[in-house]
Amino acid sequence: MSHLLHIDTSVQGDGSVSRRLTARAAERWHSAHPGGTVTYRDFAADPIPHLDAAGGLARMVPPADHTPAQAASFARSVELIDEIKRADVLLLGLPLYNYGPPSTVKAWVDHLIAPGLSFDPETGAGLLGDTEFLVLAARGGGYGPGTPRDGWDHAEAWLPHGVLMTGLTPRFITAELTLADKNPALAELRSLAAESATRAETLIDELWAERQVA
Amino acid sequence: MSHLLHIDTSVQGDGSVSRRLTARAAERWHSAHPGGTVTYRDFAADPIPHLDAAGGLARMVPPADHTPAQAASFARSVELIDEIKRADVLLLGLPLYNYGPPSTVKAWVDHLIAPGLSFDPETGAGLLGDTEFLVLAARGGGYGPGTPRDGWDHAEAWLPHGVLMTGLTPRFITAELTLADKNPALAELRSLAAESATRAETLIDELWAERQVA
Repeated sequence: MSHLLHIDTSVQGDGSVSRRLTARAAERWHSAHPGGTVTYRDFAADPIPHLDAAGGLARMVPPADHTPAQAASFARSVELIDEIKRADVLLLGLPLYNYGPPSTVKAWVDHLIAPGLSFDPETGAGLLGDTEFLVLAARGGGYGPGTPRDGWDHAEAWLPHGVLMTGLTPRFITAELTLADKNPALAELRSLAAESATRAETLIDELWAERQVA
Repeated sequence: MSHLLHIDTSVQGDGSVSRRLTARAAERWHSAHPGGTVTYRDFAADPIPHLDAAGGLARMVPPADHTPAQAASFARSVELIDEIKRADVLLLGLPLYNYGPPSTVKAWVDHLIAPGLSFDPETGAGLLGDTEFLVLAARGGGYGPGTPRDGWDHAEAWLPHGVLMTGLTPRFITAELTLADKNPALAELRSLAAESATRAETLIDELWAERQVA
């Protein structure tokens, strides 16, 4: 039985582009995997706690030596990692806030990097590489090669490095210039924004189309 | 009267290099500013809440229309921004976790980007540019030009972009290879690590030395 882990992170609710894209992808996945099951998480409704002074070192201390706060933080890592291991596909919505990922996404990755859980501390082998990792990203401006803000999307640049040890390899499908419709200063970019949205939707629609036919 | 805002963020407690560096800088600042006052924050002990579904849009909604959760989130922005405005110098300890900033630092920046508070929405002018922003950064590996992980420090790359609208301009003093002493695989890099630490300490000691003489 196929299993999907669907994670939304935008705080924008109905106005969120990344949520619209993950919803479209989840729908396509369902069509291609009748009877497939889903785990859904919403980091905006139920944020992943920050690493903090009390529990933050849980992943660097032998479990037998954990304080109660470290044990709770480690249990969160076990839960978040196990739900990735159970999934064939991990779908993450990733908006760009102030040129970086939502802080909840950083906190999630900080929980995922755990020796013995997500990678083998002896060999360094990642243990989550069997899960396909699709990131549906949305960003308000334009960040393509040659644009003035090329290199300013520090969410998409960081994530592959952040999860590298786990064996997860993100594939990004990105809609950009999502603020062009709302921001008069970006009005000239509306056709580019529409193209970007259409391209993202097309890529999503193709994701499982082949497997659907087979 | 001079005023210092000192923010630590590492979850490593006594083992933290960034805390050691901020403590050294704060001590030098005190020597150069007798009678100066300090506001201290510890994001590891008292994390800045994530933007979430209930309050996250507070900075994009007119205050008169705020829900109670948005009003609370906006009040946090006012508090964090006012304490920067009151400071002549902002000292931030910035460790690198999984190639990015602590999630608390991202949450802090997300609270700082607030029209009318940290920048003028009409002119776009940043309102926090009168505060000198010193970042004392620590990273376990080596990320210099030409090294295999050149470009993997997404904390230092992101922060100047993240705070750009506010007028804050971070100056970084960075100690790297801080794991060389603990990790046998990095043993060959211990002399480079020691050089990096010494260089950072020297730069810190020079920060207010001139003003101290004057």
